[in-house]
Amino acid sequence: MGPNLGFIEPTIALHYVFNSPNDKFVFDVSHQCYAHKILTGRKEGFTNPDLYEKYTGYTAPEESEHDLFKVGHTSTSVSLATGVAKARDLKGENYNVVAIIGDGSLSGGEALEGLDNAAILGSNIIIVVNDNEMSIAENYGGLYANLSELRKTNGKAECNFFKSLGFDYLYVENGNNIEDLINAFKQVKDINHPVVVHIHTLKGKGLDVAEQNKEAFHWIMPGTLDKKDDTHVVMSESYTSLTKDFIFNKVKEDRTTCVINAATPGVFGFNESFRNLLGKNYVDVGIAEEHAVAFSSAMAKQGAKPIFCVMSSFIQRTYDQMSQDLCLNNSPITMLVHWGGLSNADATHLCSFDIPLISNIPNMVYLAPTTKEEYLAMLEYAHNQNEHPVAIRVPMGEIVSTGEKDLTDYSKLNKYELKEQGETVALIGEGRFYNLAQKVKNELKEKQGINATLINPKFLTGIDEEILENLKQNHKIVVTLEDGMLDGGFGEKVTRFYGNSDMKVLNFGGKKEFTDRMQMNELYKRYRLTKEQITEDILKLV
Amino acid sequence: MGPNLGFIEPTIALHYVFNSPNDKFVFDVSHQCYAHKILTGRKEGFTNPDLYEKYTGYTAPEESEHDLFKVGHTSTSVSLATGVAKARDLKGENYNVVAIIGDGSLSGGEALEGLDNAAILGSNIIIVVNDNEMSIAENYGGLYANLSELRKTNGKAECNFFKSLGFDYLYVENGNNIEDLINAFKQVKDINHPVVVHIHTLKGKGLDVAEQNKEAFHWIMPGTLDKKDDTHVVMSESYTSLTKDFIFNKVKEDRTTCVINAATPGVFGFNESFRNLLGKNYVDVGIAEEHAVAFSSAMAKQGAKPIFCVMSSFIQRTYDQMSQDLCLNNSPITMLVHWGGLSNADATHLCSFDIPLISNIPNMVYLAPTTKEEYLAMLEYAHNQNEHPVAIRVPMGEIVSTGEKDLTDYSKLNKYELKEQGETVALIGEGRFYNLAQKVKNELKEKQGINATLINPKFLTGIDEEILENLKQNHKIVVTLEDGMLDGGFGEKVTRFYGNSDMKVLNFGGKKEFTDRMQMNELYKRYRLTKEQITEDILKLV
Repeated sequence: MGPNLGFIEPTIALHYVFNSPNDKFVFDVSHQCYAHKILTGRKEGFTNPDLYEKYTGYTAPEESEHDLFKVGHTSTSVSLATGVAKARDLKGENYNVVAIIGDGSLSGGEALEGLDNAAILGSNIIIVVNDNEMSIAENYGGLYANLSELRKTNGKAECNFFKSLGFDYLYVENGNNIEDLINAFKQVKDINHPVVVHIHTLKGKGLDVAEQNKEAFHWIMPGTLDKKDDTHVVMSESYTSLTKDFIFNKVKEDRTTCVINAATPGVFGFNESFRNLLGKNYVDVGIAEEHAVAFSSAMAKQGAKPIFCVMSSFIQRTYDQMSQDLCLNNSPITMLVHWGGLSNADATHLCSFDIPLISNIPNMVYLAPTTKEEYLAMLEYAHNQNEHPVAIRVPMGEIVSTGEKDLTDYSKLNKYELKEQGETVALIGEGRFYNLAQKVKNELKEKQGINATLINPKFLTGIDEEILENLKQNHKIVVTLEDGMLDGGFGEKVTRFYGNSDMKVLNFGGKKEFTDRMQMNELYKRYRLTKEQITEDILKLV
Repeated sequence: MGPNLGFIEPTIALHYVFNSPNDKFVFDVSHQCYAHKILTGRKEGFTNPDLYEKYTGYTAPEESEHDLFKVGHTSTSVSLATGVAKARDLKGENYNVVAIIGDGSLSGGEALEGLDNAAILGSNIIIVVNDNEMSIAENYGGLYANLSELRKTNGKAECNFFKSLGFDYLYVENGNNIEDLINAFKQVKDINHPVVVHIHTLKGKGLDVAEQNKEAFHWIMPGTLDKKDDTHVVMSESYTSLTKDFIFNKVKEDRTTCVINAATPGVFGFNESFRNLLGKNYVDVGIAEEHAVAFSSAMAKQGAKPIFCVMSSFIQRTYDQMSQDLCLNNSPITMLVHWGGLSNADATHLCSFDIPLISNIPNMVYLAPTTKEEYLAMLEYAHNQNEHPVAIRVPMGEIVSTGEKDLTDYSKLNKYELKEQGETVALIGEGRFYNLAQKVKNELKEKQGINATLINPKFLTGIDEEILENLKQNHKIVVTLEDGMLDGGFGEKVTRFYGNSDMKVLNFGGKKEFTDRMQMNELYKRYRLTKEQITEDILKLV
C-alpha cells in the first residue's frame, strides 16, 4: 500500500515519457507496480470487488506485455534490467531499459552486484531509485546516510554512492511532482550510458493514515481502511507472542543474546516498542539475508547468543552462507524459520522449499515442533547449546498445547517420539501435519479397525534408525506426512532407509511446482493431503 | 600463490601492530593467509615436503587459535568480522577486529551487504582492502574505476566508494612497504569506529614470473615453478575444449549468444585470447553469481542466448536467483555446471551438493551426460530450445566417446535410456557413475551370472515413470548410483517412486557431510562406492 501510493506520480511520468512496452520497465519486488497495472489495462482489478483476485500484487508477464518478469523477492530489478539491456545490445535493437528500485532494496547483495555491473554496461540503462526513506521498517546500512546527504544537498554532495560505482546521476527532490519527474525522465530518455535517477518520494502519499503510519501501511489487509486503529492482523499471533516472550527473557538474563532479522520485523511481531525495548540486542541488517547468516555465525563463534528470525521464502537467499559461513563452522546459532509450509501464497512468496533447502546441509539441525511445549523446549535447547546450528520451523496458527512441559533432551539428535504404539501402519507426521497424522489414524481405526502407530519425528535433518528398524517387526506400511515439497525433503530420507526391506512407504506432501494463490483446500486435494485421500491410499496397500 | 606473495609485508605489519589472537584477524577466501600461517606456528607446512599436506590452503580454527573461521568461498570476511565485533561489544570486551578482503572479492553480494552493515557498527572494526588490481583474472564492475581513481589520487578523491558507505578511510600507496603499513595500522589500532585501510599491493610480489603472469599464477600446481612455461594444468581439458569449440561456433552463428561467468574464467579454460576472440559476447560479471543468474535469465527472456558457466561449489551462492529470477520465469538459459561430483577437495570447495540444490527447483531441467556425444547433443538442445532453464553437469576427466552421434530428443523430458535390457537387477548410473554401473554389471555377471539391466537416466530432475514401471515385471532390485550427496538427490526420487511396490531399491552416493581433502579411493570405500562393495550389497538382497 505505502510504496504504491508514493509511486503514483512517477508511474504516470514514466508512462508519459517512455513508450512501454517498446521501452522496458523492470520493477523490483513489484511493490511499486499498482499504478503501472492500473495504467496498463488492469484497473478493474482495483475498482471492481469481484475482480480483486484477478491480478497478482506483483508484475506478471501472463497478465500484460508491459510486465517483463514475475518478481516478488527483492533487489532483483537492476540485474534483470542489465540482462534486458545486454540482449538489446547484442540484437542491435534500440530502446530504453528502466529499472525501478526502492531505497530499502538497495542493501541486498543482488542489487549491489547488479549496480556494480549495470554501471559498466556502456549503453542505455536508467535506474530509477525510488527513495521514500524507508524499507518496510527503517532502513539500516551505511549507504542510507549517503542517500540522506544527497537529499540534503539536492543531489550535489561530492561523495555519492552511485557516482562512486560509475553512474551518471540526476536528483529529483520532489519525486511526487509530475512536471519535475517528466523533465528528469526526458533528460535521460535515450541516454547512451548508465544513469541513476534518484527521486525523493513520500511513502503513503495522499492517504493521511498511511503517511503517518508508514510501517503499518507498508501492507494492509482488506478492510483495514474501515477500521484504521486496528492496522494489522498479525499472523500466528500466539506463537509470535511466545517467541517474543522467550527473546525478551533471554535478553534480560544474558546481555549477549541478540535477535537478528533482515528488514521484515513485522513478520515476527517485532513492533517499534519491542525493538526499542531490546535496544542493542536487536539488529535489523536491512535487506541482507546473506550478511545476517554470516553475522550470526560469527557472533555465536565468539560466544554470543544470536537468534536469527527469517521467513521460509527468504531463507532461500542465503544457501551458501548457511553452508559455508554457518554449517562448515558449526556455529551454534538459533534460526527461527517462519511460515514454512504449503500455503495459498503468490508464486513469488511460497514457503514450501525450506525443508529440502535447509535439511540437506551437513551439520544443520532442523526441528519441527508440533505443540507450544515442544516449541518452548526446542527454543531452550537451541539457545543454550554450543554444538550445532539449530533451526526451528516455527508453528503457525492456533496454539496447540498439551499443558505438560516437554522434557525431551534434544541434544540427542534425530530421536523421534513414538506417541502411540500400534501395528500394521505407522504414521509419521511432521510439524503442522502431525495433527493430520492423528486424523488419519482415527480414520483407519473407524474404517478398518486398524490401530496405527503414531510418530512425531521432531527432527527434519535425520533418521531415527532405531525406531524405524523396530517398525519392521509388526508394520507393513510407513506413511510420512510433510508440510512442504516432497522432492529432496523429509519423507524421502525415510523411504531411502527402507529401500532394502519389505516395508512399503508412502510419502505425502507437495509436488515440485510453483503454485500461485491456490486455495488451501484445493492444494490439499491436488496433493492427496486430505485425511480421506491419505486413508484411501493407505488402504489400497493394506 | 599470487595473492599470498602480494600480502607478505601486510601480514608482517598486521602481526607487528596487532596482538593476535587477542585481536582478531578475519581472512576472506583465505587466499592471503599463507604468510599468516607461517608466522603462527605452521611454517613447516611450507618448508618440509613431507608436511605439505598437513595444513589446508585456507584458515582453519582446528589448526591454530589465530584462525577464526573455516572459509574458502569469497566475500565473507566483512560480515563475519562484523559478527565478531558485535559479540565483543555485547560481551563488553575490548579488542581490535580486522577483516581482510581483496579488491576482487568486493563485488560479491555478501561483501557489499557486509560493508553496508559494518559501516554502522558504531565501534571498532578495521577493514583492510588488499587492492592488487585484480580478481583471479581482471576485475569487472563499476567500483573498480573508483578504486583506480583512489589509487591515482593517493586516496584523496572526493567521491569514495567506502566513504559513501560511511567508513572512515585511509590509503596506503605502497602496500608492500612494511614501514608505511606499520604506520597506517598504528593509526587505526584501537579506533572507536569503522575504518577502511585501502592498501595498494602487487599480486605475485617478489617472484618475477608471478608478477608478470598474474592470472596464471593466481594458483599453481606443485612443480609449476620448475617448468615455468607450462604454467597450468587445466582440468578436464578435453571437455573444456569441446565446450569452447561449441561456444565459439555458436557465437559465430548467432550474435546473441553470450557466455557469462563470475570471475573464474580459468576453470572453464577461457584464457585471455579466447576472451578477446568472443569480445562483447563474453561477460565476466566479477565475483557476483547472483547477478550472473538474474542477468542470464533476463537476456534469455529478451531472446538472446546466454550460456552461464559456473563451478558446482559456487552455484550454491545463487539458489534464490535460480528459483525466483530464473525458474519462476522459466527463462531458457544454458547453465554449465563444472566439477560436480565427489572429490578430494578442501571442505570449503566441495562440489557434491549441486544435484540436491539444483534438481529440486521447479521448472529446472538438469542433465547429466555420460559421453562426448551426449554432451554435445545436450548442448545443442539446451542452446536451441526456448522452453526451460537447462543445466548440464559437464563431465570431467578423459573424454568418453562412442563415435556415434546422439540423436536423442531431449525436449521429451525425463526419458531415461535403457542401454542394456536384463533382469533381476537394474542399475541406474548417473553421469560419471554410469561407468561404475557398467562395472557392477560385469561383476554381477561374473560372480553370480546375473544379467543386470543398465540404464542411463540423463535427467536428474525427474523420474521416467514408464521405464521404472516396466522394471517391475522382471526385476527385484533397482540400484541408483550418483556422483554426489544422497540426501535430497537423484536416487531418493527413484526410491520414492517404488515406495508402494515390492521393488527393493539401493541408493549409492555420498553421505551428508563436509569431507576435507580425502583421497578419492578412501572416499569411495567409505561410501561403499567400489564395484566390489556395491556388488556385495546387491547380492545380499538377491
